[in-house]
Amino acid sequence: MPGSIRLFVTAPLAAGVEIAATAAQAHYLGTVMRRAVGEMVGLFNGRDGEWTARLATMRRGEASLVVDRMLRPQAAEPDMWLVFALLKRDATDLVVQKATELGVAALWPVLTARTNAQRVNLARFHAIAIEAAEQSERLTVPSIHEPQPLSALLKTWPTGRRLFVAAEREPAPPIAAPPIVARPIVAPPIVAPPIVAPPGAPPGAAPPGAATTCPAALLVGPEGGFTPAELDAIRGHPLVTLVSLGPRILRAETAAIAGLARLQGAG
Amino acid sequence: MPGSIRLFVTAPLAAGVEIAATAAQAHYLGTVMRRAVGEMVGLFNGRDGEWTARLATMRRGEASLVVDRMLRPQAAEPDMWLVFALLKRDATDLVVQKATELGVAALWPVLTARTNAQRVNLARFHAIAIEAAEQSERLTVPSIHEPQPLSALLKTWPTGRRLFVAAEREPAPPIAAPPIVARPIVAPPIVAPPIVAPPGAPPGAAPPGAATTCPAALLVGPEGGFTPAELDAIRGHPLVTLVSLGPRILRAETAAIAGLARLQGAG
Repeated sequence: MPGSIRLFVTAPLAAGVEIAATAAQAHYLGTVMRRAVGEMVGLFNGRDGEWTARLATMRRGEASLVVDRMLRPQAAEPDMWLVFALLKRDATDLVVQKATELGVAALWPVLTARTNAQRVNLARFHAIAIEAAEQSERLTVPSIHEPQPLSALLKTWPTGRRLFVAAEREPAPPIAAPPIVARPIVAPPIVAPPIVAPPGAPPGAAPPGAATTCPAALLVGPEGGFTPAELDAIRGHPLVTLVSLGPRILRAETAAIAGLARLQGAG
Repeated sequence: MPGSIRLFVTAPLAAGVEIAATAAQAHYLGTVMRRAVGEMVGLFNGRDGEWTARLATMRRGEASLVVDRMLRPQAAEPDMWLVFALLKRDATDLVVQKATELGVAALWPVLTARTNAQRVNLARFHAIAIEAAEQSERLTVPSIHEPQPLSALLKTWPTGRRLFVAAEREPAPPIAAPPIVARPIVAPPIVAPPIVAPPGAPPGAAPPGAATTCPAALLVGPEGGFTPAELDAIRGHPLVTLVSLGPRILRAETAAIAGLARLQGAG
């Protein structure tokens, strides 16, 4: 449950560095949270760990912070992706927020035959993910990719990344089996990928410095399910494992949240 | 993902029985889903399994259905409760919906020192749970109890029902350990408890005919967390096990959904 103020910034973090808050952050600090000059907040940027910073100036909707000391170093995080068919706006927002809380490294919205939504507002997804990362005490913000057809993503799927597919009305083993639990990355510390990846970035491009064991992903289909042709393509992919989320039929956003919770174990 | 129409009814289900739809159901069938006389829908009541029924009459906002044949018998379901500190309206609604999808048998809203909400609309919770049960292909609707202080619920906690408590910033083992997975009830078939339990109903009162193995519950605190005194009372309870949902700080509603997903395994 949310604790003290933590803000995500893009600037490098080191003792003594002065950082300008964005307009939204300045508004949040001054107007929403009523913080005054001299008070402390936490900062993280996905690369340099978490730091305390002192609110140095605040006036006319602007604020600056001076970085003080490191609270904790950048740490390894699970290398789990979520691939999900775009849903209606509220459901997609929920998926972005909850997947961030549950620690996913990357979000890949995809288009399928039965996907209704086509357009997304990546800036809004980005804002939701940042807020969720700030509140959940993550040290990174997940990368969020441009939507693309599921078939295109499967064609360029990175070698070695297992893809668990939430199956309904299909025989599949339960998702809780031990080998499919993603393990936290051990060392060296992961370097955060860019927040919003450029549309052309290959899905297999690992961020520099990332050492991953057991990279994995969960794929959740649209409300109407996959078509038989899509299921054939999925089943035929060498890295795919169909998994069951139980006997009930879950809404797509519930399948995403519950599936991630189970895959990540205590990660 | 939701399939064909399924409706929850309170009347007994048997071949040939005629059942009057509620006004809301008649509106849903005729106006929302544009169903015509002669078309088939599914019915369940939490006791008699799932049946097909033919839309027999429909006019002026009223509809009746004639039960045809049984699709599947009433089946055992996991005996899992969710105890949760009342949250803001949207978050509580989400918990009721997702917990129903994830198969909980009973929802126990509680009041804690840091709970902001005091009043609830049980009728709305009930409607949300029924809709989620209809869409998730459950054969029951969870019972939803009147809010009460957490201390009162702990005092009357039923013997033999383990209570897993989502712990944050507390040393606790991961929630995924095998002994805490709730097992489906085997036999005889569970008889559904009343949808909304009367305020005075003792929490240990099992529905008649229920045979339970490994009854369990998950307790999730309010956004602000439990107070030290509450944590002491929780820790001191003989049936309580503190469990971790991972290193991140989850919103209360996320903790409820993710915790249930993990506890239930493939249940």
